Amino acid sequence: MERLIEVTDVILRDAHQSLLATRLGIDDMAPACADLDEAGYWSLECWGGATYDSCIRYLNEDPWERLRTFRKLLPKTRLQMLLRGQNLLGYRHYEDGVVQRFVEKCADNGMDVFRVFDALNDVRNMATALRAVKKTGKHAQAALCYTISPEHTIEDFVRLAEELAHLGADSICIKDMAALLKPQPAFDLVQGIKRSCGTQMQVHVHVHATTGVTLVSLMRAIEAGADIVDTSLSALSLGSGHNPTEALVEMLEGTGYRTRLKMDYVDRANEHFLKVRPRYKEFLTAFTGVETSIFQSQIPGGMLSNMESQLKQQGAGDKMKEVLEEVPRVRKDCGYPPLVTPSSQIVGTQAVFNVLMGRYNVITGEFADLMLGYYGTTPGIKDPDVLEKCEAHSKKEPIKTRPADLLKPEWDALRAESIALPGCNGSDEDVLTFAMFPKIAPKFFSTRDEGPKSVGKDPDAAQPVAAPAATPAPNGAIPPLTRPVTYKVSHRGAFHMVTVEPAEKPAS
Amino acid sequence: MERLIEVTDVILRDAHQSLLATRLGIDDMAPACADLDEAGYWSLECWGGATYDSCIRYLNEDPWERLRTFRKLLPKTRLQMLLRGQNLLGYRHYEDGVVQRFVEKCADNGMDVFRVFDALNDVRNMATALRAVKKTGKHAQAALCYTISPEHTIEDFVRLAEELAHLGADSICIKDMAALLKPQPAFDLVQGIKRSCGTQMQVHVHVHATTGVTLVSLMRAIEAGADIVDTSLSALSLGSGHNPTEALVEMLEGTGYRTRLKMDYVDRANEHFLKVRPRYKEFLTAFTGVETSIFQSQIPGGMLSNMESQLKQQGAGDKMKEVLEEVPRVRKDCGYPPLVTPSSQIVGTQAVFNVLMGRYNVITGEFADLMLGYYGTTPGIKDPDVLEKCEAHSKKEPIKTRPADLLKPEWDALRAESIALPGCNGSDEDVLTFAMFPKIAPKFFSTRDEGPKSVGKDPDAAQPVAAPAATPAPNGAIPPLTRPVTYKVSHRGAFHMVTVEPAEKPAS
Repeated sequence: MERLIEVTDVILRDAHQSLLATRLGIDDMAPACADLDEAGYWSLECWGGATYDSCIRYLNEDPWERLRTFRKLLPKTRLQMLLRGQNLLGYRHYEDGVVQRFVEKCADNGMDVFRVFDALNDVRNMATALRAVKKTGKHAQAALCYTISPEHTIEDFVRLAEELAHLGADSICIKDMAALLKPQPAFDLVQGIKRSCGTQMQVHVHVHATTGVTLVSLMRAIEAGADIVDTSLSALSLGSGHNPTEALVEMLEGTGYRTRLKMDYVDRANEHFLKVRPRYKEFLTAFTGVETSIFQSQIPGGMLSNMESQLKQQGAGDKMKEVLEEVPRVRKDCGYPPLVTPSSQIVGTQAVFNVLMGRYNVITGEFADLMLGYYGTTPGIKDPDVLEKCEAHSKKEPIKTRPADLLKPEWDALRAESIALPGCNGSDEDVLTFAMFPKIAPKFFSTRDEGPKSVGKDPDAAQPVAAPAATPAPNGAIPPLTRPVTYKVSHRGAFHMVTVEPAEKPAS
Repeated sequence: MERLIEVTDVILRDAHQSLLATRLGIDDMAPACADLDEAGYWSLECWGGATYDSCIRYLNEDPWERLRTFRKLLPKTRLQMLLRGQNLLGYRHYEDGVVQRFVEKCADNGMDVFRVFDALNDVRNMATALRAVKKTGKHAQAALCYTISPEHTIEDFVRLAEELAHLGADSICIKDMAALLKPQPAFDLVQGIKRSCGTQMQVHVHVHATTGVTLVSLMRAIEAGADIVDTSLSALSLGSGHNPTEALVEMLEGTGYRTRLKMDYVDRANEHFLKVRPRYKEFLTAFTGVETSIFQSQIPGGMLSNMESQLKQQGAGDKMKEVLEEVPRVRKDCGYPPLVTPSSQIVGTQAVFNVLMGRYNVITGEFADLMLGYYGTTPGIKDPDVLEKCEAHSKKEPIKTRPADLLKPEWDALRAESIALPGCNGSDEDVLTFAMFPKIAPKFFSTRDEGPKSVGKDPDAAQPVAAPAATPAPNGAIPPLTRPVTYKVSHRGAFHMVTVEPAEKPAS
């Protein structure tokens, strides 16, 4: 008797957030929904994370309308979102009333599964959101951010899972955004959670593919009792994205585990995204290979490139090595936060300043806030000298309370401000859009009526239109193509009939 | 107590054969050898396969000189090669005397491990080479080509491994060139071989990464007792290549298995190939993602594109679906050969003819030879009616004997012919080069003194200047090509960097 392993596909959210800079619009995704809805997924992650921001910032698309559209197009399948706890989908802490209102509106508009996490794994930043989800009767999934540090043992994570279970979580997610979860720890962690929270507690494993080992980790997690795993259609998979859904299914054959996916539907949906992908090649992340150095450096790829550009801006590109050595020290000084947004940027930027200006001679406001508890608690002991410097620099008191406890009710003010904006329709959804992104919401409200704008480009469209007839170049060089030409081409020892068209910058 | 897992890195041979069209010259590889030699590999695959062909066809490099150079640069590590049994490194069967001479010369020039295989898994095509290796006292590794068909059960492969062991193989390799080996079959096959051949028989697992599941297969193979696995430095890994060496090492942490790799050396060697890779981007295989449809179609990607171009040349591009349905039938009719070079091309081409001209109304000479036994035996029963047609068409008798038994001693004739060529140095090695590639050896001998020519390009450098006077065609049409030109090409919905060269008869 094979055990059923449920699957969540992240193709509609995290896959394009990780690989295509979150640029897919609803029109790129809608055509695949009928197949995705029939394929037999436990859920489809399709909303939250950076998609809300991307919708109003780049796509002139109402994120709430997108959610309602998915609900219509995916009647048989759970819709899942990623929610940053007390930060919701914005970049600050919100007062509890706003958090509750946001969760209600998500539920009203069709959300089924709320994956709630906090970058520091501070459960106080997750509690209000989790309770609000429970109140709507929807599925409250609590996620722990997996990372590696002296303050993050398997036992620590198991204890964290227990706390989240006590908060009423319907399931526990192991969220491995940096692909640090190796096979054996994956086995031990899932086994530990099942033992401490009870086998009835569903364990959902989310891993990225960056380091190349995490499909094996999924196998071991499943062997340890994991109930649900996240994958992505192969068309948008691997690299800093996720393991391919098709590979998971093939992997399980004959192992005593099975999914209930109907592959005809999966394959058809994948065909669609194979066609979509080339239209977004300008957004495709440079990195689509495998990156294992993070196991040594502890530094995620995105953070690395941030620090490199910061150094270059300071004309100190040669200091990268010192910065790389400084990061673990800064991380230790502030109590070993997991390195994810925003902590990765905060730690990385401070490390850059430490190298350029001398250690903690300059302290960023965000680093001071992190040290002083304004983002929540970090697992480790903070360095007392650095803490003192942060107090002096920021003129702020360290806090032990939950950051959101310092906030006063803000809904009425947000409502008043937003409805005054041209184009705001006065709905709670619009108020929340303004609350989330006060700087860009006004422009979005004013242009919303023009409807969604796709940022994809037809890869076959002739780019800068060259002269009508191919002007013969000097000394008989091949002139730039001005139209598709079909050649017989030998490629890897095989002959192909291929159509050649001008690339973005025609070679001359 | 952890069990030691030995590692073979294929970075110097199969990695660039699979990803860079076998174009790396010795100068691209030599700088990494000092680190590779210290890293602690069981062996480094660095010769054979298509590298011999590529050396004299594209790189003006003497393959034997390359071997001697590797021997000098890698004094501490076993050198390993891939040998196509009775075909050696060419594309026909050779008489036993030539096979023996070739193996002796490889050993004389420093080869340690000979991986011997036959595309049809016909042991008679492997026996002479294996015996010749034993005679030199070097390591004779016998490889079975893994595939999926009704005639290829785990038991069949285990029986094949036993036969190879009886031939005196020092180790058994499971060669999974199409990435078809799923985790559970990997476990069962390794376990079966260990049980039937004895635990002292080393099992070496070679998998490609194409389908995305085979790192898991390596994990399961190791759990079943595999002794050695093939991986590739991450800089040239994944896609139709291999699993990353670094990922394998991370995967094993805490699992009770360990390698003896020193990662500082591995990382430094990888740094080198990260720098080399961009210089060969025009040769980089288009496909670097994951491709699982082969599990259903049984048709490797390269074979697929071959058939598509054949159909298009016949103006029958719309017939692809029928051809895809015809391939499994043709494969069945000829007794289920593994679909690798050359059988994949032979079966695919016949399937195209069957669809275009009616089933077996036209029969290619190669397909007739395959049916009549001139490539060796296929595992399944051949269709008697088709067999009859092949006899009639080819006017040849079916043979049951080993194909090479039909060959007369040919060394003296080859020697006489080759030493007559300008630039031939009269060595046995040169005779073998001529024997392997009679068409291109003469030109190579005549230009050898100019030394190796790298085909890598500075990625930032502009296109090479055109050859003089490509006559501009009338009405601004693209003139015939006079030199290789690299285009960005759209093919089957994906973008490729493809080099287009004038076909033998330039299309006009």
